[in-house]
Amino acid sequence: MRIAVLGAGAMGMLFGGYLSRKNEVWLVEISQERVDRINREGVKIREKEGDVRLYPRAVTSTKGLGTMDLILVFVKAMFTEEALRNNQHLIGENTCLMTLQNGAGHDRKLLSFAKPDRIIIGTTQHNSSIIENGYIHHGGIGLTSVGLLSGNSASLLPLAENFTACGLECVTCDEIQKQIWTKLFTNTAASALTAVLQVPLGFLMENDSAHGIMRQLCHEAVMVANAEGFARFDEADVLSGVEAVCRNAPNGYTSIYSDIRAGRRTEVDTISGSVVAAAKAQGLQVPCHEMLVALIHALEGKPRMD
Amino acid sequence: MRIAVLGAGAMGMLFGGYLSRKNEVWLVEISQERVDRINREGVKIREKEGDVRLYPRAVTSTKGLGTMDLILVFVKAMFTEEALRNNQHLIGENTCLMTLQNGAGHDRKLLSFAKPDRIIIGTTQHNSSIIENGYIHHGGIGLTSVGLLSGNSASLLPLAENFTACGLECVTCDEIQKQIWTKLFTNTAASALTAVLQVPLGFLMENDSAHGIMRQLCHEAVMVANAEGFARFDEADVLSGVEAVCRNAPNGYTSIYSDIRAGRRTEVDTISGSVVAAAKAQGLQVPCHEMLVALIHALEGKPRMD
Repeated sequence: MRIAVLGAGAMGMLFGGYLSRKNEVWLVEISQERVDRINREGVKIREKEGDVRLYPRAVTSTKGLGTMDLILVFVKAMFTEEALRNNQHLIGENTCLMTLQNGAGHDRKLLSFAKPDRIIIGTTQHNSSIIENGYIHHGGIGLTSVGLLSGNSASLLPLAENFTACGLECVTCDEIQKQIWTKLFTNTAASALTAVLQVPLGFLMENDSAHGIMRQLCHEAVMVANAEGFARFDEADVLSGVEAVCRNAPNGYTSIYSDIRAGRRTEVDTISGSVVAAAKAQGLQVPCHEMLVALIHALEGKPRMD
Repeated sequence: MRIAVLGAGAMGMLFGGYLSRKNEVWLVEISQERVDRINREGVKIREKEGDVRLYPRAVTSTKGLGTMDLILVFVKAMFTEEALRNNQHLIGENTCLMTLQNGAGHDRKLLSFAKPDRIIIGTTQHNSSIIENGYIHHGGIGLTSVGLLSGNSASLLPLAENFTACGLECVTCDEIQKQIWTKLFTNTAASALTAVLQVPLGFLMENDSAHGIMRQLCHEAVMVANAEGFARFDEADVLSGVEAVCRNAPNGYTSIYSDIRAGRRTEVDTISGSVVAAAKAQGLQVPCHEMLVALIHALEGKPRMD
């Protein structure tokens, strides 16, 4: 496949790097310094077993490259539209646009650039962080699930096999939106709340007030998901699912909890923030989510005391 | 004056004790043990200069005592109505009911028992805590402001002079509701928020997200206060006032912050909780206040980590 990866950040380099094993991959990145480094030395990936070096090509401009089979969007969510606009000439009749960005609602932006049966959304358990320009740490390994926005995802089987053959295990999923939101319910109603309260997951089951907030966050998120219309979630079922996660790992500390504890920026905008954005698009009010996002941003900016 | 003080808690004993210097004071308390102790040894008050002992009378039942000139309500807010109902025979044509309980909306409960021109509300800067049965620590000293619910408070001058002569400096105020809410705006929009975020007051001015929450809390509280109808608050003015408090004490830690830090129960129900209660009575939605109250209760129940 001819693949363009928009954004040579930690995840873009990871996917671009591995996919270049069996595909023609173009990493599109605005930093000339990073592009030069990648073209000179390749993408260097720290794996458990040692460093791996892979050689996708990198460019700051895609002029003259012709259309792609697949465009993978890995820029930060707020730059998605700008990146696609700048590289619109890569999009042909049969080009698929794909996003694995965290949170929901990214498909809305992609719909301005392609038809629903050319839009691939999904989730991935891979985790990657930048060590330095062109050098990343592949910290988390897992499954990537993809599906077509239009529903039936059988046509994605060759793509999934291609990813798997490159070392990125990939499965297709017919109800991918449902899966994305199911992941989001837990992230927004439980994980984000443990970050604000600085507690393990089990606390949300033991403390009535905390459980009440979790229930209210589920209520808002389900309302938004149902307004999106791709599935019908039952609020009680969703709450049970989130509760089960808390009950199964009562002493579990979430990554967003750790981010706040360590004074790092969190992913709250792509998690709870994506519920707020989807609510806005649907004309719905989600005051608890708005407050949750603001609280986490406030805590991110807090001077460390310990 | 013949005065009944309902509730021999820390504040009831403080006011009952000092007022007994120049009045006939009856402390009404359900604990027989505390009543016996007070009748045997008086109320013992730890002041900066040493212990003071004062001798109001204490009773578990007020049967046969006849009507009072003043009934001071110092039970916990949730017991106000029950306490007044149990002692209704103390209320005559000219009996004044008075509450200095923290937060707003206590007058609503008093209105079932007396006319607006017999209801005295106010704020006090006195602070008191129980050391043991009948023995309290007078930790904070300051002004008490009182006013009639019906507005013009000139007729309260003799009462204020009486309080002052007993050692509790007291002034009258024509717009007492306005003063109560002004204190409440700062307590709910700034103090309670510093408890959740565990930051000093100045942080709410430095951090955009925290400031945004403070603004939203002001918005909700002003909406409720204006619906109550006793005054017309301008939202921008209220926000400026709260901001000024934060700016004047940037390194100031609030008492509710300290309560959470120390793992103690807070007064949030009488502060932000009274905004929620007033909103409910007015049929208004205050989702940020509801979440704020729940967050503080959740933090109260958190296992200590440091």
